[in-house]
Amino acid sequence: MSYKIIDGGVTSPKGFSAASTAAGIKKEGRTDMALVYSEVPCVAAGTFTTNVVKAAPVKWDQDIVYNKLTAQAVVCNSGIANACTGTEGYGYCAETAKVTAKALNISEESVLVASTGVIGQQLPMERLAAGVEAMAPLLKDTTEAGTEAAKAIMTTDTKKKEVAVEVEIGQKTVTIGGMCKGSGMIHPNMCTMLGFVMTDAAISRKLLQKALSASIEDTFNMVSIDGDTSTNDTVLLLANGMAGNPEITEENEDYQAFYEALNYINTCLARKIAGDGEGCTALFEVKVIGAESKEQAVILSKSIVTSSLTKAAIYGHDANWGRILCAMGYSGAQFDPDKVDLYFESAAGKLKIIENGVSTGYSEEVATKILSEPEVTAIADVKMGDAQATAWGCDLTHEYVSINADYRS
Amino acid sequence: MSYKIIDGGVTSPKGFSAASTAAGIKKEGRTDMALVYSEVPCVAAGTFTTNVVKAAPVKWDQDIVYNKLTAQAVVCNSGIANACTGTEGYGYCAETAKVTAKALNISEESVLVASTGVIGQQLPMERLAAGVEAMAPLLKDTTEAGTEAAKAIMTTDTKKKEVAVEVEIGQKTVTIGGMCKGSGMIHPNMCTMLGFVMTDAAISRKLLQKALSASIEDTFNMVSIDGDTSTNDTVLLLANGMAGNPEITEENEDYQAFYEALNYINTCLARKIAGDGEGCTALFEVKVIGAESKEQAVILSKSIVTSSLTKAAIYGHDANWGRILCAMGYSGAQFDPDKVDLYFESAAGKLKIIENGVSTGYSEEVATKILSEPEVTAIADVKMGDAQATAWGCDLTHEYVSINADYRS
Repeated sequence: MSYKIIDGGVTSPKGFSAASTAAGIKKEGRTDMALVYSEVPCVAAGTFTTNVVKAAPVKWDQDIVYNKLTAQAVVCNSGIANACTGTEGYGYCAETAKVTAKALNISEESVLVASTGVIGQQLPMERLAAGVEAMAPLLKDTTEAGTEAAKAIMTTDTKKKEVAVEVEIGQKTVTIGGMCKGSGMIHPNMCTMLGFVMTDAAISRKLLQKALSASIEDTFNMVSIDGDTSTNDTVLLLANGMAGNPEITEENEDYQAFYEALNYINTCLARKIAGDGEGCTALFEVKVIGAESKEQAVILSKSIVTSSLTKAAIYGHDANWGRILCAMGYSGAQFDPDKVDLYFESAAGKLKIIENGVSTGYSEEVATKILSEPEVTAIADVKMGDAQATAWGCDLTHEYVSINADYRS
Repeated sequence: MSYKIIDGGVTSPKGFSAASTAAGIKKEGRTDMALVYSEVPCVAAGTFTTNVVKAAPVKWDQDIVYNKLTAQAVVCNSGIANACTGTEGYGYCAETAKVTAKALNISEESVLVASTGVIGQQLPMERLAAGVEAMAPLLKDTTEAGTEAAKAIMTTDTKKKEVAVEVEIGQKTVTIGGMCKGSGMIHPNMCTMLGFVMTDAAISRKLLQKALSASIEDTFNMVSIDGDTSTNDTVLLLANGMAGNPEITEENEDYQAFYEALNYINTCLARKIAGDGEGCTALFEVKVIGAESKEQAVILSKSIVTSSLTKAAIYGHDANWGRILCAMGYSGAQFDPDKVDLYFESAAGKLKIIENGVSTGYSEEVATKILSEPEVTAIADVKMGDAQATAWGCDLTHEYVSINADYRS
């Protein structure tokens, strides 16, 4: 491990500041807008939802990340997702960027926009504009300002999610800090994952995107709360170069150090999302080892972590290994069920549940004890090779149903 | 409609009889074995789970249906699924067929076997054998005997599921009767769909399998309770020719009449499974119309009916159209979200919710009224062509979580 975990978030890297406000989009005076600003332009990378139905800010940001290549600010509102809002909604997104650009005296094409909340409602543009104008003079580079921004993007998240690390690159200290929000809702119409990662590393745009795209596959893309891929999912990574390291322009040692640190940030944020899934009582981690290929391990681990029956069993602290084998079987990946070993592991211990496809005659009592921890891991060994993958999810609870069935108030 | 719905089930076609018993596999003296017998050999067709993990009886039946081609009896137990039981479990399956063959004085290669219940436990072979011997002398061709068999294969199903129709073919009355069980469990380790359809039609084995395979695609395969494909799913179709119609050997009018009647049986059974899904309070039907291809309509409708967020909204009687559009968007099918119209329909009326991708400004009150019925339909028009598909599922409820989280007792 070449990086060092520090206290902080999006404001930890040099040159980044943040602000937040209660613009009146959410009810009850909760903060619902966040602004992150870099004092110099950043190279920008992004990954976006694969949903055919894309929210307006996703389209806006894709244009900036793919075509404009640099950015200097991210403005985010919670409460309304600005998805399924047609040309009117896209207009409000552009207007938000325009207002933000004016308040910060930068180009509107360097303002990234994100929204999370109810699908299908139009944004209250006047409140949003007033929110931006209120935030601009409040921008601060303190850890607290970053933390408040992380809180402002929450919907039914129960915990703010942020993390920061330092890593030595070219004898300079490079800092990476990120925040995100998970699957939660104030209104039962939405499920959005948003991640914002800032760094003061000097790195080419091409390698920044490459690092993000590669890391996403092993981190955010391995999370499933309920199998529903949102219309708004966005992860943005901005690098402003203020750490003063020699610019990373090839996949050398510096790139590796940066990648490892970034991957830690993303893994940490991904686990925080899984562990705070709607209504959940436990983080459920699934490792598939001994796979023939990475792809096979990914398919198998995601199938297990997405299975409603398995998730309900985890909630019940029940070592329902049949459901796990079943979920592997319908995943689409080929393997020999008669060779599979399965373990459950947590802070309370590790137990072999099945060996070569049949029960080991394990103690149900011990298994239940292991599964009663707030973080539990299932490890499936398919004994076909050396590839592996880890997926994160959570249990399926009564509270999940309550959150998502309650009539919109 | 060329067929007539009659009161009955598997014993309705000529020559079929049934029996059931409490063999002591389930607790509390509930019936847990069923036997269906044809007095003459039948051509047999079958469709089976696509899960890589296949229960022993699935392997046994596949061999008979694919290689032996005829069958004369089906023996089914509930309580234990005989899945993930290795060579020992396959031996018990073969032993069950052997005991049944002896009791009925037929070849063991003409006995189809099915199991449903807990995964990973071995069958109590002595009780099973005693059950078979008890049932053989009790075989009766009465409607009641068929109904009792339909009850004996239930696990946590709350309703027995059977249906029968008559159809005129070649101036003879052909009868088709079926029973099935849905997703339910006495032990939270299993989810199995079993369907048994009997007919006295004279029809070639090739066309019988063709009719079943085609009909399955539009009926049983369009049901999703929780997205978990079982290790035991099996639908068997036996035809004994006793109706005396000219044997159907080509895809003529007679085949069409038979197919329509069979398809009604399968549709009816599939809807019964969906409407009795674990913990459910409503049957949720999803029609995708105006699709470019049947395949596209199938992908879209199944994605909607499988979405946890949508299912929870149906439970809450909430017209959460954003979730439906979201589920269509991540389905993998291409379409233009800005052209979609969406309706909700039930016995309480029909309401257009979105037009060209945006809200119609519908009345939430009226929508909630429509969604409060025990059978609700969502209709999505993607306006790309003439193809359509219908999928069936149910709402996601607190009771579903309870059933599947409760520690195995």
